[in-house]
Amino acid sequence: MTYCVAMRLDAGLVFLSDSRTNAGVDHINTFRKMHVFEKPGERVLVLMTSGNLSISQSVVNTLREKLESSRGTNLYKVRNMFEAAKHVGDCLREVHDRDAAALKQFGVEFAAGLILGGQIRGEEQRLFNIYAAGNFIEATRDTPYFQIGESKYGKPIIDRVVNPQTSLDEAAKCALISMDSTIRSNLSVGLPLDLAIYENDALTIGRHVNITQENAYYAQIRKQWGEHLRQGFADLPAPAWNTL
Amino acid sequence: MTYCVAMRLDAGLVFLSDSRTNAGVDHINTFRKMHVFEKPGERVLVLMTSGNLSISQSVVNTLREKLESSRGTNLYKVRNMFEAAKHVGDCLREVHDRDAAALKQFGVEFAAGLILGGQIRGEEQRLFNIYAAGNFIEATRDTPYFQIGESKYGKPIIDRVVNPQTSLDEAAKCALISMDSTIRSNLSVGLPLDLAIYENDALTIGRHVNITQENAYYAQIRKQWGEHLRQGFADLPAPAWNTL
Repeated sequence: MTYCVAMRLDAGLVFLSDSRTNAGVDHINTFRKMHVFEKPGERVLVLMTSGNLSISQSVVNTLREKLESSRGTNLYKVRNMFEAAKHVGDCLREVHDRDAAALKQFGVEFAAGLILGGQIRGEEQRLFNIYAAGNFIEATRDTPYFQIGESKYGKPIIDRVVNPQTSLDEAAKCALISMDSTIRSNLSVGLPLDLAIYENDALTIGRHVNITQENAYYAQIRKQWGEHLRQGFADLPAPAWNTL
Repeated sequence: MTYCVAMRLDAGLVFLSDSRTNAGVDHINTFRKMHVFEKPGERVLVLMTSGNLSISQSVVNTLREKLESSRGTNLYKVRNMFEAAKHVGDCLREVHDRDAAALKQFGVEFAAGLILGGQIRGEEQRLFNIYAAGNFIEATRDTPYFQIGESKYGKPIIDRVVNPQTSLDEAAKCALISMDSTIRSNLSVGLPLDLAIYENDALTIGRHVNITQENAYYAQIRKQWGEHLRQGFADLPAPAWNTL
């Protein structure tokens, strides 16, 4: 499986993805799920993928192929993020047209979930969740984040902490804690992580970090957060059975 | 949906269930999912149910009917918890034989998940997770808890806190926090809750509490835990981007 999360905050966008793929527990590999398309000063688009790896790789390859073609549209030609989301959805449908029937014959569902976020000059930053059918929804101030893959383990902490006013640093911390909770509870999500931070109106990716087991900051917040949870737990009053 | 969790600790057993059932978001109701079968001094069995409500109610009705029949076995006749788990599995198979084909005609899957725990005199306390097929697994010291229903949201905190040495009070706190995380992130899980605590070798349910919105202890730990998480969050160092 996969776990990816993206947040749209007033201050910018935060993207975090794991890198584990598995086809059964005896076939676990590391593949990047975050793909950055950037023309500094003009546009930044970040795509994260979940689902069947052959499908998501085909989508990314299709997107890249179109970048090099002079015909038709591509992610460097689209005029705004809505067009970009439609273009990614169209590429997903191309892959569907090629592969879905063959996969079905082998009992494999056409599973894909994508997150696309970024900014194109002249428009505000935007964040989309694109479904396997190529349709999509956009993040709003009411729901400023999207998750794909193994989303449930890491959802409670985001629901408690993140709102549009959250700073980029806080949001990055929250995304890493959410990822840590997921990794602890689900074998199919694993390091290394890709973390990208986009500052609103920067039109270039400010920070893009690959986080491995050796990353000191990640190790520190994992440890500190775990200790904090255990301490908070100990501090909670015992059930007052008489009054329950 | 549903969320139920049970823990087998050295000190005893903890059971917690929500009470929300839904058939689409416009048809949400409150039904108990925890059923206690008790002969004080001789045996205590606690059954929690998830899945299709008609199935789980039919299983419980079948179990109760058999209690009143002089023929065949029942939960008051079985000699140990392994026999009890087999008996519950058999009742589930009876319901399957009656309903599964008809449900399938309407595109409804035969979905059921049960947790059975308790103690019968002469044997130690035991805890089982019974699947829709009537087969089951037993909790061990390595994996001292089972969840059914919407299990993922509330799993990380249990993974961090619970082990066989955890006290009953601590385990009850943890179950309530796990439930709170689930309720916050998933509309299909809701109050009131049923909490039952079984002290090892007591052969009677020591505490069985129904927890509503008005329960002061639950409100307190919800609030205190939420504040603790936010505080711990604020205390975590900001990402040290230079060294990441």
